[in-house]
Amino acid sequence: MHQLVVTLDCPDRPGIVHAITGGIVRAGGNITELQQFSSPDTGRFFTRIQVEGSQPEELRGSIQDATEGFEAKLTVDDATRPVRTLLLASKAGHALNDLLFRWKGGDLPIDVVGIMANHAVLAPMAAFYDVPFKHRFVTAETKPDFEAEVRKVVEEQDVELVVLARYMQILSPELCEFLAGRAINIHHSFLPGFKGANPYRQAHTRGVKLIGATAHFVTGDLDEGPIIEQNVVRVDHTMDVAKLVRKGQAQESQTLAEAVRLFAEHRVLADGDRTVIFR
Amino acid sequence: MHQLVVTLDCPDRPGIVHAITGGIVRAGGNITELQQFSSPDTGRFFTRIQVEGSQPEELRGSIQDATEGFEAKLTVDDATRPVRTLLLASKAGHALNDLLFRWKGGDLPIDVVGIMANHAVLAPMAAFYDVPFKHRFVTAETKPDFEAEVRKVVEEQDVELVVLARYMQILSPELCEFLAGRAINIHHSFLPGFKGANPYRQAHTRGVKLIGATAHFVTGDLDEGPIIEQNVVRVDHTMDVAKLVRKGQAQESQTLAEAVRLFAEHRVLADGDRTVIFR
Amino acid sequence: MHQLVVTLDCPDRPGIVHAITGGIVRAGGNITELQQFSSPDTGRFFTRIQVEGSQPEELRGSIQDATEGFEAKLTVDDATRPVRTLLLASKAGHALNDLLFRWKGGDLPIDVVGIMANHAVLAPMAAFYDVPFKHRFVTAETKPDFEAEVRKVVEEQDVELVVLARYMQILSPELCEFLAGRAINIHHSFLPGFKGANPYRQAHTRGVKLIGATAHFVTGDLDEGPIIEQNVVRVDHTMDVAKLVRKGQAQESQTLAEAVRLFAEHRVLADGDRTVIFR
Amino acid sequence: MHQLVVTLDCPDRPGIVHAITGGIVRAGGNITELQQFSSPDTGRFFTRIQVEGSQPEELRGSIQDATEGFEAKLTVDDATRPVRTLLLASKAGHALNDLLFRWKGGDLPIDVVGIMANHAVLAPMAAFYDVPFKHRFVTAETKPDFEAEVRKVVEEQDVELVVLARYMQILSPELCEFLAGRAINIHHSFLPGFKGANPYRQAHTRGVKLIGATAHFVTGDLDEGPIIEQNVVRVDHTMDVAKLVRKGQAQESQTLAEAVRLFAEHRVLADGDRTVIFR
Repeated sequence: MHQLVVTLDCPDRPGIVHAITGGIVRAGGNITELQQFSSPDTGRFFTRIQVEGSQPEELRGSIQDATEGFEAKLTVDDATRPVRTLLLASKAGHALNDLLFRWKGGDLPIDVVGIMANHAVLAPMAAFYDVPFKHRFVTAETKPDFEAEVRKVVEEQDVELVVLARYMQILSPELCEFLAGRAINIHHSFLPGFKGANPYRQAHTRGVKLIGATAHFVTGDLDEGPIIEQNVVRVDHTMDVAKLVRKGQAQESQTLAEAVRLFAEHRVLADGDRTVIFR
Repeated sequence: MHQLVVTLDCPDRPGIVHAITGGIVRAGGNITELQQFSSPDTGRFFTRIQVEGSQPEELRGSIQDATEGFEAKLTVDDATRPVRTLLLASKAGHALNDLLFRWKGGDLPIDVVGIMANHAVLAPMAAFYDVPFKHRFVTAETKPDFEAEVRKVVEEQDVELVVLARYMQILSPELCEFLAGRAINIHHSFLPGFKGANPYRQAHTRGVKLIGATAHFVTGDLDEGPIIEQNVVRVDHTMDVAKLVRKGQAQESQTLAEAVRLFAEHRVLADGDRTVIFR
Repeated sequence: MHQLVVTLDCPDRPGIVHAITGGIVRAGGNITELQQFSSPDTGRFFTRIQVEGSQPEELRGSIQDATEGFEAKLTVDDATRPVRTLLLASKAGHALNDLLFRWKGGDLPIDVVGIMANHAVLAPMAAFYDVPFKHRFVTAETKPDFEAEVRKVVEEQDVELVVLARYMQILSPELCEFLAGRAINIHHSFLPGFKGANPYRQAHTRGVKLIGATAHFVTGDLDEGPIIEQNVVRVDHTMDVAKLVRKGQAQESQTLAEAVRLFAEHRVLADGDRTVIFR
Repeated sequence: MHQLVVTLDCPDRPGIVHAITGGIVRAGGNITELQQFSSPDTGRFFTRIQVEGSQPEELRGSIQDATEGFEAKLTVDDATRPVRTLLLASKAGHALNDLLFRWKGGDLPIDVVGIMANHAVLAPMAAFYDVPFKHRFVTAETKPDFEAEVRKVVEEQDVELVVLARYMQILSPELCEFLAGRAINIHHSFLPGFKGANPYRQAHTRGVKLIGATAHFVTGDLDEGPIIEQNVVRVDHTMDVAKLVRKGQAQESQTLAEAVRLFAEHRVLADGDRTVIFR
């Protein structure tokens, strides 16, 4: 049956769950999944609810009426509608390949509108998966053009999510701002350890016994955005940097794919600098 | 503030969440935590809700009124009330020590009323943690007496949970029946692999690359009760049975402690032969 | 520098390591990696050694001389020589895609000579990765033909490893025998739990809290061959069978790729029904 | 049979393994376990070998003769001789309890000569495990006395290993120097993330999805010493700092116990600022 997904956050006050569920009942909806969280740090209430048996506009209106005065931020969406997604890449194809394979296999509720890259090497992969591919070598001079192009694609194609699938350029503060809350990056370390360049080399030098990957929202502070998902894998003293890279790539791909899935299913809500994840 | 915990399960029908939350609002309660699940397998609805600002009897009555006709099974309890617990043990002390240390440190919301064992070796540990300890060597002849004693303690001391902390005797079908839904065992394998005796030896023979532990409800079918928690740890060809035992013990202790915590916090609900775990 | 890899196993006797290393020294070799294991279960000694500075035939001869009388099984190979590999598949492409991507990226030391499948759906993937693809629908009648074809390819193309990348047909006892010690299957459960068909459905019914994948050598006993690698991932009560399938696929792909890598790097030795894995 | 353990490290040169194994053979020894590693970063060779059938002094002499000119650092020890260990603690008892329980159960090859603490609360635990316990409140003024006492115990009782089992004071540079290579600390974060005070609070603020523990050698650089072992556990947005603390304690205990076991079994060798771990 047709499933809708509702997210709502507001200052936490008694009665909010009853109010929302009242709105759902009055719109003829039946709750199939409900999660909620009251954040002690920010005093905000968050919920994600899946509903069947109701129509989007009717449900939205009914919940809005029911939660009047709660200052709620409300979204109502079709639970299975694919989220319009733009992918950014450079040369490394593992994370990109993983996303594209899962998407084509129906495993990720996204719709990839295109791939933009600062190198041409991944063009055949894009062709195989039948995705528009644009590339432009990025230098200090051409970066503004590349970023303007990203912006244009986002605006003209109603892109809801930009995924940096090992895109190895730092976005300008302006583009970070423009994409706030809708751009996800994969960093190849277990943040906050080993920020910046060459995290696997840093990890080798420090002699850590686990390496990891972190998917986070892009912000103007490099590698400091709210964390969505992290994973680690065990390593040992015999592994050189190249082996750490290889070992870590599977973690990168999986961590990024999971973050994209969580976002596309409306399971990621922002609570200040932290995320609320309704799995 | 005073916290109450509500669990409820009933046949799944539209409006149930709104009905319950209405009951909570009318009892002056504020929801601080809410989880729910609709089981496609059994058609049942499950929820666990933490509430502050209300009194137990008032809350119970108000929810009962609100859910009339839903055929709901309802429990309302003080969220911090320790659950009265009886521990059964044999010779191995690791799981027992872990439970007692966590309990004394305030990490497990239980109240240990006593330890019953079929060997005397753990008596000093019981004394250190200041817990009554009874032991009786169990043979085919003395087993009925031991079990009668368990039954008596459970009845006379209002025991709510019996934990088999590596108690190495099989309970009689009658005692299993008597303790249904309130006895947790730790089995030293990743069930359903390696049921019965000597699971570490079985694991070694089979050459598995991970060994595990399973906490489950005790039923008359040996090692077949609903699973509450499982963990595994990596092993390799160099490890003999003794090393697997040592390696597995940390998993056993942690897995059992986690299962006891989940039970004591009213986070474990039965859905046929499976469990619903509201973490 | 040119690297050779030596594996040797024999009845365990004092002096064997010194004898082998003597053979290496006399062939002008320098040891860069050495692992050894004495199996208490079978009384056999196993070693894997990487050597630089020597030539294959000279090294082989020198070690043979040095270990005369030890009844040793010896292999000497170029450490970077890709292992000639045939892939079998059906409809599911995740494990196949993962192997092909890693191979093309230089991450797996194999050389894929072809893909044989009992369905045609993966033909485009094979084309993209530029690998010969044959398919033939397998029924009770056509199975002998398909298997004869596999045999022919193995013989004519000097195939050293056959990988069942979610090939959903049971091999005949004769083919199992023919491929003994050189065919790896990925089973989509944490063996020995959930052998046979529909392991994810079995896992759901049993209500386990972790699901897994097992890469093992193919033998005539279904899902009973020596285990090479296993992994698990946490699941919960909310996941239906379809979600378990999706969740498990990443484990399957990784577990199989790791087993193939271990085999291709000569890190897997047979110790009766168990494996010795020199990581 | 009587087992000896040999560790040796020296500049890496061809023939070293053959030389050592020759020394072992000539001393009548049989190798039961051998691991080796050539470090590309420092150019050093490391090995750990278990030997049976030989006497310590004879074995040492024979290996020394055989490796003359290699500038080798050699240790020969009885493989089952418990390592003389001093424990430092403060108020938190989880890591201490875990070490003491494992030690008494024969799971850790150490001999605990005493516990020194800057608080008295763990005295009963020490008494239960029958270990001498000294406490002295540590302030800026009394710190030198406490550290002088530690030094004295180490010297007078031939202590080989000092374990900081959540000892919450920073050691002076002089004591760090004195204990170099023989003092292990457990830090309650996944280093290098969250160095210094209150790592769980830092982890909560940053919103990480995994928390961890790190066992490392103590050096004058706080939380910067060579890492021996690390573990992590998954956390989520619902967990406040207190819950992270509770969740992390099991990791701390296990990680520290594993590091102590590795050290006591002579499995930890120093390779510059990194460790070589022969599991």
